[in-house]
Amino acid sequence: MSTAIQPTDAARPSEGPSLAAEIGLIDHHCHGLVPQTVERAVFETMISESFVAAPKGTTHFDAPVGLSLRAVCPPLLDLDPFCAPEDYMARRAELGGPEVNRRFLQAAGLERMLIDTGFRGDDIMTPPQMHEVSGIPAHEVVRIEAVAEEVARRGTSGEGFAAAFAAELEARCREAVGLKSILGYRGGFAIDPTPPSATEVTEAAGRWLARGEASGRHRMDDPVLLRHGLWVGAELARSRGLPIQFHVGFGDRDLRLHLNDPTLLSDYLQAMDDIGVDILLLHCYPFHRNAGYLAEVFPNVYFDIGVVMNYTGAMSGRILEEALELAPFTKQLYSSDAFGVAEFYYMQSRLFRQHLARILDDWIARGHCNAREAERIVRMIATDNVRRIYPSFD
Amino acid sequence: MSTAIQPTDAARPSEGPSLAAEIGLIDHHCHGLVPQTVERAVFETMISESFVAAPKGTTHFDAPVGLSLRAVCPPLLDLDPFCAPEDYMARRAELGGPEVNRRFLQAAGLERMLIDTGFRGDDIMTPPQMHEVSGIPAHEVVRIEAVAEEVARRGTSGEGFAAAFAAELEARCREAVGLKSILGYRGGFAIDPTPPSATEVTEAAGRWLARGEASGRHRMDDPVLLRHGLWVGAELARSRGLPIQFHVGFGDRDLRLHLNDPTLLSDYLQAMDDIGVDILLLHCYPFHRNAGYLAEVFPNVYFDIGVVMNYTGAMSGRILEEALELAPFTKQLYSSDAFGVAEFYYMQSRLFRQHLARILDDWIARGHCNAREAERIVRMIATDNVRRIYPSFD
Amino acid sequence: MSTAIQPTDAARPSEGPSLAAEIGLIDHHCHGLVPQTVERAVFETMISESFVAAPKGTTHFDAPVGLSLRAVCPPLLDLDPFCAPEDYMARRAELGGPEVNRRFLQAAGLERMLIDTGFRGDDIMTPPQMHEVSGIPAHEVVRIEAVAEEVARRGTSGEGFAAAFAAELEARCREAVGLKSILGYRGGFAIDPTPPSATEVTEAAGRWLARGEASGRHRMDDPVLLRHGLWVGAELARSRGLPIQFHVGFGDRDLRLHLNDPTLLSDYLQAMDDIGVDILLLHCYPFHRNAGYLAEVFPNVYFDIGVVMNYTGAMSGRILEEALELAPFTKQLYSSDAFGVAEFYYMQSRLFRQHLARILDDWIARGHCNAREAERIVRMIATDNVRRIYPSFD
Repeated sequence: MSTAIQPTDAARPSEGPSLAAEIGLIDHHCHGLVPQTVERAVFETMISESFVAAPKGTTHFDAPVGLSLRAVCPPLLDLDPFCAPEDYMARRAELGGPEVNRRFLQAAGLERMLIDTGFRGDDIMTPPQMHEVSGIPAHEVVRIEAVAEEVARRGTSGEGFAAAFAAELEARCREAVGLKSILGYRGGFAIDPTPPSATEVTEAAGRWLARGEASGRHRMDDPVLLRHGLWVGAELARSRGLPIQFHVGFGDRDLRLHLNDPTLLSDYLQAMDDIGVDILLLHCYPFHRNAGYLAEVFPNVYFDIGVVMNYTGAMSGRILEEALELAPFTKQLYSSDAFGVAEFYYMQSRLFRQHLARILDDWIARGHCNAREAERIVRMIATDNVRRIYPSFD
Repeated sequence: MSTAIQPTDAARPSEGPSLAAEIGLIDHHCHGLVPQTVERAVFETMISESFVAAPKGTTHFDAPVGLSLRAVCPPLLDLDPFCAPEDYMARRAELGGPEVNRRFLQAAGLERMLIDTGFRGDDIMTPPQMHEVSGIPAHEVVRIEAVAEEVARRGTSGEGFAAAFAAELEARCREAVGLKSILGYRGGFAIDPTPPSATEVTEAAGRWLARGEASGRHRMDDPVLLRHGLWVGAELARSRGLPIQFHVGFGDRDLRLHLNDPTLLSDYLQAMDDIGVDILLLHCYPFHRNAGYLAEVFPNVYFDIGVVMNYTGAMSGRILEEALELAPFTKQLYSSDAFGVAEFYYMQSRLFRQHLARILDDWIARGHCNAREAERIVRMIATDNVRRIYPSFD
Repeated sequence: MSTAIQPTDAARPSEGPSLAAEIGLIDHHCHGLVPQTVERAVFETMISESFVAAPKGTTHFDAPVGLSLRAVCPPLLDLDPFCAPEDYMARRAELGGPEVNRRFLQAAGLERMLIDTGFRGDDIMTPPQMHEVSGIPAHEVVRIEAVAEEVARRGTSGEGFAAAFAAELEARCREAVGLKSILGYRGGFAIDPTPPSATEVTEAAGRWLARGEASGRHRMDDPVLLRHGLWVGAELARSRGLPIQFHVGFGDRDLRLHLNDPTLLSDYLQAMDDIGVDILLLHCYPFHRNAGYLAEVFPNVYFDIGVVMNYTGAMSGRILEEALELAPFTKQLYSSDAFGVAEFYYMQSRLFRQHLARILDDWIARGHCNAREAERIVRMIATDNVRRIYPSFD
């Protein structure tokens, strides 16, 4: 892919920090693409975590994420940077969803993708479809809470819930490479870190199922069942060698940010370390320093700043710098957390590559690093750490 | 005004980022000036949020705010930068309060001021007096809690409080352009976000009034009445189209910083979005990233870093950079939060202009922005956002 | 010592920011050295706050702290920067612990050291031994909680605890220059800020001593006795003119980071201000901005970023910049918090010197400071503030 980084050595173009411009990234947390062409009004709601139209008289393009999109995406649609949003959307429609998706996915320079299938699965592409559009392997990550909601929708009882959930989660994970929890969206991390008793689960399931039937919507927000899900997931993760991803921090209005500080999870993280389960903290802004701290002190904790670089655009290098402050280089991962919008798979990749190379170049210039170590750091974050903590991708 | 920023295009001096050096700012949150000359001991307590003298053997001039003042203010009093504090204070006294006030206010390059009249109103200038010294329009913002305290001082009963408060707040807001809450100073944001019942208000008012009469001081710190004030204010704001300002974060010892995280207010912010009331988060340090997050996800939330640039002086560009990370450009505002000290109206303006121009120049140099978009961003933050969310200033 | 900073004026090499490269620092918070040669496996656990081996297939050298160590320490052992960790460890063993300790301690350029003797005192050197290896004065700081644990180990009763603890703390402090609390490790700062009653202390001591005898381990973690210790320490500090150090933030897994926000201590800080006791907040990351805020608003609060620069290596300048944002220059201190590992005394000194000089040079270049003020700022943080708040070192 094209970036501002130029190889400094013609004989070995990928040496040192400039490897960041070329290496195939493993995007260890993203979602499926929306297959079809979308209207501007819909597109705007997809580039804002408000999920609604911008206030009257304004547009979501007038945000860091919109400006960054206008800076780097138009050339991939044969347009000039900073062309008007209406021209961009017209050209996008003209090319059509499949062609736009293909262009951005392929320009992202990914080696493989790990896809969370638990959010709005009916609106977006499946892992096999993602493989088709991108030409690279696409693996599934199973969202624990979504499985519980599916079990409820199919119909079960308070007494039957625990067994049905365990069986379904086990079945769904047979081909999966990891688990995912959205506890951060369902009350946050100030939880009792221990597993609930079987009796507590049965009672909580009875109440929760009844509430879901009454409202016609099964939304997993029961504290006892959320804890239960984490522990059933943990046991499965332990026995299958799967890591568990956690949504942390930056996200939409459904969460309460002050309850998304991942250090609130410390006791659960320790419990997972005790049984040998790796935990991957996703996004983390504005708690990325706290995530880096956890990655330093807990052997089983990893983190990324997925989606955050897209949303902080011109300032995103700052976030990556802070993510590189404290945590071991062996504990950081790459992800885009892209959902639906093709541009997002590309933008995070491009920003990550440019800023990582620039930061490492700066470290070398100041005597804090050398080319060989910089190259190793790039490989660790881009692919090696993912390969070590996920089950074999073969 | 004079800044380090030079126009890059003689034919159109205000093009692109350099517009930041010239545009007339709307200072949407400040206080009145102290009219008279002040002694050094008093002046020192006014440039520190400790509000007391510096520890023995030290001076508040040896702080980022004092160093920054010495860097940029002396030339306006015909002195050299970094002249000794005693020389600065002597020249300040020689010129006299009115002349000092006039010089700094006019050098601030403001278009208009919105003035919070609810703090130490007897010691500082009124909006008409501020208009006189500055030559620009000065509008009033009414502090909810100060009105409740006035009602108590005039005398009312538990039964009569709600009606008296509502009537007084309505009267005070007839000419005002906005409301202000200092909930952050009176227990913080971990509140019940719903309105109290009439019975609860009557009982709480009875207790609070009795306590105030016993102590001789009516300080609005009752949790029920604080919530009541927020909801009476919200109803007035909704019907009159006024926004509500909230003190957030950085301030004096009366607050508890950990209870000033604005994400604690999320449920109330959602309630205000539901009824169409805009909320303006002031200052925000060190929660400015959290404020930016709220501005991204809540359509009705805006924020600024008023006063913080003054207090962080040489490093203030960092804070502005972080404020520009995530939040839409349509959601940020300019304010000085200056109180009493003429220098503060000027310093924040100068720092804001210099750093905003520098940041946008840097974005352009790195391909993240262009001159036209930079100019639009300057206009949004300097004036356009304020014009959109406040009632018409005509 | 050798740093990247070059004097800008041959006639007066220590003028302005470059004084930072040369001034003798007072390390106001560190621990003793491990006297003997250590194996690589042990060394790795000493350069990670996980205190355990790195995950399989990784090494703690692949972290910011390890990379920074490899960047700057090998030349002091006659090796090239970024030599392989195995070569570094081999040379370290060849030279032997005493020679390695001598080289790094002397290269740190310290004027004196204040040594916390309360952690693993049997494994590390005493202040007199530290004086011997370094050739500079070494003073003792007494850890409150460790004294309580010693009193328990020697044997006392619930009724006798308060008197025995007070007597022992008083005796231990006769030669000491300060007190230290690890409340941050024993439940955190969300405490009742008032002293417990004598009856509460007697009852709590009885329970705590019985628990310690049953388990064979006296670990001071009782909330009542922790508060009691803080107040007994405060009274001693007040009468003897000693400051109290608090561990804040960054540390090992024994703490819970969300309970280490020092603003949670505000009411206790105010109580200490009321009786004239200075409080020194140590480390503080990622709460260093909160610590800076407390230093601005509380006359008796000081802080440092000890150990954090070591652990953030290449990015450590960022942390120092943030520490310099808001707090008065009269309120910041230098420390390494080095424990055991000789490199840590040197690395923090070197990073602090380089970054402080660079930051002040940058301030001067941007007109925010001048050489004379920069030199004063260096002196305040390096030595003058320590001299003012600790008892006389003579």
